[in-house]
Amino acid sequence: MTDAPAASPTAAVLVIGNEVLSGRTKDANLSHIAATLAGIGVPVREARVVPDVEAEIIAALDALRHRYTYVFTTGGIGPTHDDITSACVAKAFGVALERNAEAVARLERHYNDPALLNEARLRMADIPAGAVLIDNPVSQAPGFRIGNVHVLAGVPRIMQAMLDGLLPKLQGGPAIHARTVSCSLGEGTIAKDLGDIQARFPTVDIGSYPYFRNGFFGVSLVLRGTDESAVEAAAAEVAGMVTALGGTPTVTIGTAE
Amino acid sequence: MTDAPAASPTAAVLVIGNEVLSGRTKDANLSHIAATLAGIGVPVREARVVPDVEAEIIAALDALRHRYTYVFTTGGIGPTHDDITSACVAKAFGVALERNAEAVARLERHYNDPALLNEARLRMADIPAGAVLIDNPVSQAPGFRIGNVHVLAGVPRIMQAMLDGLLPKLQGGPAIHARTVSCSLGEGTIAKDLGDIQARFPTVDIGSYPYFRNGFFGVSLVLRGTDESAVEAAAAEVAGMVTALGGTPTVTIGTAE
Repeated sequence: MTDAPAASPTAAVLVIGNEVLSGRTKDANLSHIAATLAGIGVPVREARVVPDVEAEIIAALDALRHRYTYVFTTGGIGPTHDDITSACVAKAFGVALERNAEAVARLERHYNDPALLNEARLRMADIPAGAVLIDNPVSQAPGFRIGNVHVLAGVPRIMQAMLDGLLPKLQGGPAIHARTVSCSLGEGTIAKDLGDIQARFPTVDIGSYPYFRNGFFGVSLVLRGTDESAVEAAAAEVAGMVTALGGTPTVTIGTAE
Repeated sequence: MTDAPAASPTAAVLVIGNEVLSGRTKDANLSHIAATLAGIGVPVREARVVPDVEAEIIAALDALRHRYTYVFTTGGIGPTHDDITSACVAKAFGVALERNAEAVARLERHYNDPALLNEARLRMADIPAGAVLIDNPVSQAPGFRIGNVHVLAGVPRIMQAMLDGLLPKLQGGPAIHARTVSCSLGEGTIAKDLGDIQARFPTVDIGSYPYFRNGFFGVSLVLRGTDESAVEAAAAEVAGMVTALGGTPTVTIGTAE
């Protein structure tokens, strides 16, 4: 790794693709990456969505890779003309984009017919010099890691398989513990007391998320932090607050709705 | 408006909220805003997701508002301690955050009981000086516009109602026309010829999006642009290409999958 992993690693996600900015495609990758990385103690601190435009991709990549321990990109590594992510990453790192022999071998095994493995598909084996391949158990065409940047596919099923495979290679951080206290009180009813509890527990991040489900309004109060006893103590105070305000708290482990 | 609308207006979306970066909440607002703005000829060129942290919100806001015609923020305008968007926007513009009399009046009508309209809920009437309110027909607590920045709620139902109301006040751009050519050929099979068509139609943005649905693989080739005749001509060429390569093209108007 170019950058030594931090004691408390952080991550950013860069979603690359016109289809997400046009509204055609709902990005499903950010939430998956964020939840998966949270599971190993690596919080995602920022995400950006940029179009398939070289200057935009490089600028965002440079802004993120110098600031966070890990960067994960999604999209733009297929065989068509609008797949320019690999070339942009090579430019950002100032290295050549080279046809990678191991990547070619994987594509040859996958397509198993020289006629199918045309020049367009071979472009998926063009990888920045010095990068390490990331396995794609779904359709073989690999992602790659260079420095602290992990380049993944945009198709969620493939992206998820790539992430599963590289997860053991990431340095995790302190486990993030979470409790959710739900109730049917209004946010405005609990806001003052909740703010007081937040002030008393500066190491716990308390979020308030109103919802409307199955015909009922309610609010989920999510407490997160690396100090589990602080998270539990704060959750107990929040539950006590809900009861004192006339509500019925439901406390669950995790951040699930 | 502080900034005069451009002849070809652009937009950026700033999603504010820890819950999106933790993976707890799947953002549903970007795709809605992008599709809605595309409908009036305003392409979204970039999106960012930042946590509920003042410095992060202000930095992202300043980066986006100086670069795009319009900025739309979502989230962080409720009554709880983690709702800091309005204060951050005021700081970014260098103006005071003031209790807005009209916003108070709207909250008074909504809550209809002085006991309910407590200090926490009144915080939702704190608006940057000089901002114009954006109507919230769902729960009254308004959004606002200051300069080219539109501050909207994070709850999708409320955000959508706010956007519907302010849409007629935006200056639209040239209509964006779209055609989708779908077929069951592989991306790699069509990539070369598709790239050639893209090169011949520089004003048309051609995207290639593979899919797996109902047990079938396929690819949707989406053509978008403001020159409708060019979009139609390019779509006809793409359909002809699919036929020549042994596929069966399905051409539809729009970008729907």
